[in-house]
Amino acid sequence: MAKKQNTTKLRIIPLGGVDEIGKNMTVIEYGDDMLVIDCGSIFPREDMYGIDLVIPDITYLERNRDKLRAYLITHGHEDHIGALPYVLPRVNAPVYCTRLTRALIEYKLKEHKFDKAQINTVYPRDKVKIGCFEVEFIKTNHSIAGAVALAIHTPVGTIVHTGDFKVDYTPVDGEVIDLAKFAELGNKGVLLLMADSTNVEREGYTMSERSVGKALERYFIEAEGRRIIVATFASNVHRIQQIVDHAAACSRKVCFLGRSMENVASIASELGELIVPKDMWVEPDRIDSIPKDKLVVITTGSQGEPMSGLARMASDEHSRIRLGEQDTVILSATPIPGNERMVSRVINNLFRKGVIVIYEALAEVHVSGHARKEELKLIHALTKPKYFMPVHGEYRHLVQHARLAQSMDMMKENTFIPELGYALELDRRSAGMTGGIPSGAVMIDGLGVGDVGNIVLRDRKLLSQDGLIVVCVTFDGATGDLLSGPDLISRGFVYVRESEELMESAKSVVLDYINTLQSGPHSDWNSIKNGIRNRLKDYLFSRTKRSPVILPIVIEV
Amino acid sequence: MAKKQNTTKLRIIPLGGVDEIGKNMTVIEYGDDMLVIDCGSIFPREDMYGIDLVIPDITYLERNRDKLRAYLITHGHEDHIGALPYVLPRVNAPVYCTRLTRALIEYKLKEHKFDKAQINTVYPRDKVKIGCFEVEFIKTNHSIAGAVALAIHTPVGTIVHTGDFKVDYTPVDGEVIDLAKFAELGNKGVLLLMADSTNVEREGYTMSERSVGKALERYFIEAEGRRIIVATFASNVHRIQQIVDHAAACSRKVCFLGRSMENVASIASELGELIVPKDMWVEPDRIDSIPKDKLVVITTGSQGEPMSGLARMASDEHSRIRLGEQDTVILSATPIPGNERMVSRVINNLFRKGVIVIYEALAEVHVSGHARKEELKLIHALTKPKYFMPVHGEYRHLVQHARLAQSMDMMKENTFIPELGYALELDRRSAGMTGGIPSGAVMIDGLGVGDVGNIVLRDRKLLSQDGLIVVCVTFDGATGDLLSGPDLISRGFVYVRESEELMESAKSVVLDYINTLQSGPHSDWNSIKNGIRNRLKDYLFSRTKRSPVILPIVIEV
Repeated sequence: MAKKQNTTKLRIIPLGGVDEIGKNMTVIEYGDDMLVIDCGSIFPREDMYGIDLVIPDITYLERNRDKLRAYLITHGHEDHIGALPYVLPRVNAPVYCTRLTRALIEYKLKEHKFDKAQINTVYPRDKVKIGCFEVEFIKTNHSIAGAVALAIHTPVGTIVHTGDFKVDYTPVDGEVIDLAKFAELGNKGVLLLMADSTNVEREGYTMSERSVGKALERYFIEAEGRRIIVATFASNVHRIQQIVDHAAACSRKVCFLGRSMENVASIASELGELIVPKDMWVEPDRIDSIPKDKLVVITTGSQGEPMSGLARMASDEHSRIRLGEQDTVILSATPIPGNERMVSRVINNLFRKGVIVIYEALAEVHVSGHARKEELKLIHALTKPKYFMPVHGEYRHLVQHARLAQSMDMMKENTFIPELGYALELDRRSAGMTGGIPSGAVMIDGLGVGDVGNIVLRDRKLLSQDGLIVVCVTFDGATGDLLSGPDLISRGFVYVRESEELMESAKSVVLDYINTLQSGPHSDWNSIKNGIRNRLKDYLFSRTKRSPVILPIVIEV
Repeated sequence: MAKKQNTTKLRIIPLGGVDEIGKNMTVIEYGDDMLVIDCGSIFPREDMYGIDLVIPDITYLERNRDKLRAYLITHGHEDHIGALPYVLPRVNAPVYCTRLTRALIEYKLKEHKFDKAQINTVYPRDKVKIGCFEVEFIKTNHSIAGAVALAIHTPVGTIVHTGDFKVDYTPVDGEVIDLAKFAELGNKGVLLLMADSTNVEREGYTMSERSVGKALERYFIEAEGRRIIVATFASNVHRIQQIVDHAAACSRKVCFLGRSMENVASIASELGELIVPKDMWVEPDRIDSIPKDKLVVITTGSQGEPMSGLARMASDEHSRIRLGEQDTVILSATPIPGNERMVSRVINNLFRKGVIVIYEALAEVHVSGHARKEELKLIHALTKPKYFMPVHGEYRHLVQHARLAQSMDMMKENTFIPELGYALELDRRSAGMTGGIPSGAVMIDGLGVGDVGNIVLRDRKLLSQDGLIVVCVTFDGATGDLLSGPDLISRGFVYVRESEELMESAKSVVLDYINTLQSGPHSDWNSIKNGIRNRLKDYLFSRTKRSPVILPIVIEV
């Protein structure tokens, strides 16, 4: 009856989003009912050559598909929705989310031609009964509209999951995070709090989104007589709203440029999440009809992404717009760690064109969407949880968030650092970690989901370092005579035209080896291949200190 | 007589170090005399697959080898000395530098087995006559000991080159930058100032190196009873001195770990630039004989470099030391842009072992070695140059440094943004830019200097993205019959064992194509190869949305 015991405990299973900022996914399981919170992707690490995207390993969902009742999506950022096009076709279940999140998901699924999703729109303070759970959606503030936290009432107690959040007392949409609800939940009793750890290393409070508006206002005034280009995250609807509002105040029209920016702008304005007066909105093809000093261009590329709007403008490759000394570019974003060099390249290119560039090192044109220490403490103080599990952070963030909880008098043994492969098992009185959950990262390359593994990656890495040499020899099967070759073909090793002598000598090395082979028909092709590979490898390394991949091809006719 | 005219002008020719932070090299040329300031390397960009190091293109030096009188090296950082092992063997000339710089250069040349260098030690306030020039060496402050600025007295006037510098009024070695000399030069008249632009975007002053000591002191006290490991730049002798001093104050011994740290420590202490009492110095093989709470380990890896001391400790791969809950690790450095993810990985690994980690986000354990705005203004105010050329910065830094000069009432037409391929030509009354200088980047891969060009890099990139497929077919030359194949061999494309069906179908596609060929002997091998490549490419892309490199090999026997 071991199974019985399991089903009386609540299980919290992180499938992603812990020890990393990205691909968030958490399973909540009780008896025969299972919920999944978020379904995100993450960009590949730099050593994942050729990989387009990484998503969580969903083996556990596939094994428990009959139990899965719903995906609860906290907001529309890629690290919370990006895996849905790959996961829903494999394990479909109803999706619950707010309006803007829904629109972003629908757009994404349409691109992937998946039309079987069952999406339910929810609103803050909605309560939905799903299986044995009751789920409440709670308004929060974040760098995208429509973000919610979750209160999940389970048979053993209430879980609060903050999603990504900050506390903004002067938010652009006028709706402050629903602190009263967190307080109410805390008063009734919270069994477990799971909270955003991204900014736990930072002291104090994250500034209000509205403070960016103040900085923008100043730069808009300074840019009088010039065209203004603002680059920011397409999904940051409140940032975009502020840009639009300040454009209006300066009697400027706005033009959205860049695929994702154009999409989000039209989606969000259809929903009423973004208010752009009709006569202000300039379509990209009409951009040249507006005097430069009467226009604000809002575009993507704040992270320096090579194919983005701003990067193409900076390198004169944009089809709609050429930048020059009449332009002011505002980068309204901070480089995400790892993107610094790309952003730097774009800024230097803009300087080269004589553009005035306003960017992080010089200005306050961005604020984070994540809570700092004091905001985190506020949520801990309001919810007064019995147990705490930090989420949404690298390992060090999780540890520090646990310490923050301990500094507020939570016992250390009641804090749990989540780990892939482990479940937190809870009942009303106790909590503990158990292992054995299949989990990990699934790499997506083109149409392939998970078909690129470590061997393929290792080969790509080797090929990228010193290139390759193919050695081709043909033997007569009957006599063992060499009929053709050795022919050497290289890619990515040396520039062959300037290395003729090296390649000729390498050929001689192979030929010398072949001449040492016994006459008569050969049978041990593997040993011949290895012989060629080893001799060539040693020779090339001694000459060049490089180790290209060597592919010997031995043909018998 | 065009040549004559050239020789009456002073020419300043940047061969590196402008529009980048790295591979510094500047030519100073007048008549038949030429000096080179610095000879540095830079790490390869992330898109330079397999490249070990990048140095300046020295074609201009090679063409003018008879004129070259000296290399003047301002200090011993890699971006100022790293190209010497590659450049001196090609264009040898006397090297002038201070003691520690000399020791670091000699160590480097020894590694490269080059023993023909002619190195001259100089001291601050030394004046050396070299060709038609007189060179003065001026004490500065920087994140390495022995840094100097240069005053080069030329037939048309005096050039001041700051090297990398900051203004430290309380330096660890007690020697403040020689402001009096800058003032004296300014009073006598400076034709051209060339100055470090690295920190021009930052307001105010860079903190004194000694402020790091204060922070270290606090963390050393907090770490009582624990072992302390400090990671920093091996070349930052003053930082190391402070660590040693605070170790002494806590009655701890010190152990240097990591190849470059051990080398620099022994070189610097031989020269008296680093003072470590003999009985404090613990050799790595005796590390376990010292109680943990009586030891400070000083190591490399503050940038998270995978093979460095700290990274190996963090992943339990260090041969000398295992870290755990008894250890405090202090990362006394800021991640250089691009290294953030590597540093983050090391910090997370240390947290995972229960180590207490003190790092940038939490503490003030590092200061920059480069002057901020107010320090730059000080140097401009003291030297009062007629012309100004910013150096040592990305393009945007150079532009902002020129603007800083203009804000101090220098005329815009007297400021010159340096650019590779251009010379600044000066006489007493005028200055202007002229083009046509061969310059650029030379990539070093193994023993190859400059033999990897863009075609090779492009191939490495293609190979790294989707791998490759070799297709091998053998025809009978007389009849045109297919004798062997098609055989498909792939690397880095898909995991073949799990993709048998795909590879079999791909083979059929090639075979179908071959069957369409006319019977009889073939002659146009290129057209057959292209036919195979195109059909296979289209087929694989339709199946996988990937584009591996396809290498068709057609053999005729």
